[in-house]
Amino acid sequence: MAKQGKIWLVGAGPGDPELLTLRAARLIAGAELIVHDGLVDPDILLLAPRSARLISVAKARARHTMPQHEIDALLIRHARAGRQVVRLKGGDPFIFGRGGEEVEAARAAGIPVEVVPGISAANGAAAAARIALTHRDAASVVSFVAGQCKPVLSDAAGGVEGGLAEQDWAGLAGKGRTLVIYMGVATAGRIAEKLMADGLAPDMPVAVIENGARPQMRVLRGLLAGLPDLVERERVVSPALIVIGEVTARDDMSVALLAQEVAPCES
Amino acid sequence: MAKQGKIWLVGAGPGDPELLTLRAARLIAGAELIVHDGLVDPDILLLAPRSARLISVAKARARHTMPQHEIDALLIRHARAGRQVVRLKGGDPFIFGRGGEEVEAARAAGIPVEVVPGISAANGAAAAARIALTHRDAASVVSFVAGQCKPVLSDAAGGVEGGLAEQDWAGLAGKGRTLVIYMGVATAGRIAEKLMADGLAPDMPVAVIENGARPQMRVLRGLLAGLPDLVERERVVSPALIVIGEVTARDDMSVALLAQEVAPCES
Repeated sequence: MAKQGKIWLVGAGPGDPELLTLRAARLIAGAELIVHDGLVDPDILLLAPRSARLISVAKARARHTMPQHEIDALLIRHARAGRQVVRLKGGDPFIFGRGGEEVEAARAAGIPVEVVPGISAANGAAAAARIALTHRDAASVVSFVAGQCKPVLSDAAGGVEGGLAEQDWAGLAGKGRTLVIYMGVATAGRIAEKLMADGLAPDMPVAVIENGARPQMRVLRGLLAGLPDLVERERVVSPALIVIGEVTARDDMSVALLAQEVAPCES
Repeated sequence: MAKQGKIWLVGAGPGDPELLTLRAARLIAGAELIVHDGLVDPDILLLAPRSARLISVAKARARHTMPQHEIDALLIRHARAGRQVVRLKGGDPFIFGRGGEEVEAARAAGIPVEVVPGISAANGAAAAARIALTHRDAASVVSFVAGQCKPVLSDAAGGVEGGLAEQDWAGLAGKGRTLVIYMGVATAGRIAEKLMADGLAPDMPVAVIENGARPQMRVLRGLLAGLPDLVERERVVSPALIVIGEVTARDDMSVALLAQEVAPCES
């Protein structure tokens, strides 16, 4: 009987190999085949055995990302051949990682699939920047949203930059709430505009975390109205997260100023 | 000169020791002092060296949790004595972990502090239950909220069960959005009532994940209107997460039914 293949969807975290989970590190170290995307740090790929075959789906079509249905087919083909396929994704597979689609494709094909969570970019960057995403005195909700739709990954449209995701952003940000925007650098101006048009205060504190949890991390702070200028003036590059909310201003200087109770309890 | 003390705020993840990060595992294995709360799994504490001193702040006052200001003082006292203090918290220190307060207390006292992110309960449970928190076809936003305020931790009120957090919950759930409620079992009935009163459809799919990412995990599915009954009938116990949104219904049977585009891109 042929060996039973399986797909492991594994979160690689924000880049620093030390932020891999023990399970992810073990799976990588024992891998025969790793299918990874462009967000996975080269230092993490170095943890794979020399015998492992590494397939990048970011580079498969010159500068284009491989369309999702081709990635799905690739994973299934190797699993059907009896291989243990490690599908390695930056961050957490279920936070803007399209892991849900790969799970569904595998299950539809009758291939066993298991998911190993990873430190998502927001958690990794917030820890490194010491910005508490929730805070008893400043934020009782945290929301993650993608600042732009991912490119439509068809042969015809591969590599096309996506537009701003249609969202009612206003309800996600404001007093007592933290909003973290993934992939928002290119659309920072339109995001700030939309939030203010929907009623968010122009002086709401914001932070931009570039290369979060990496040695070259930069944390830039400002106010919502100045976000587009900040991103442009500082030439912010991806990967970067935009964090909107009072938690971004709770540093040594401002704690006393912002101290206040939010989200009180009903009795 | 005295040795310089330091506080490490370390996320222990959802319970399974394999979901520790490599950095967390290394800090625990080399710890001289670990101050941990009740959510940290005993198997994780077993990774500490025999020489390490372990202090639980969950049991310090009989059945009461130690008040936050006493925890802060404890961490600072040990760091001032030159110790490397590992403050170990369930999940991620900055997602409902009160890590922000401990960072601020340490900085106010002039103690160096570093934060090591952890797999938050939502990410760990979702991976184990194979529920994608975001999904290109079903959810472009995910929000985390606490289902009840934590007890007011003063000597007088220690141990008192908190009430339902005042929130405009409606904007956080609905079409194209996933809402994850931490610590919501006790208030499930009021949460469902409030969401429906604010306009959420009674037939919105929900899942309750009890003991997420642990061997004894249970995943219960239903509809919003039936959530209180589900929790009561199945005698759901903490720790448990409530997930509200279409992503909870995307299993093998329902994928075809729910397939639809959300959050289309502006051009």
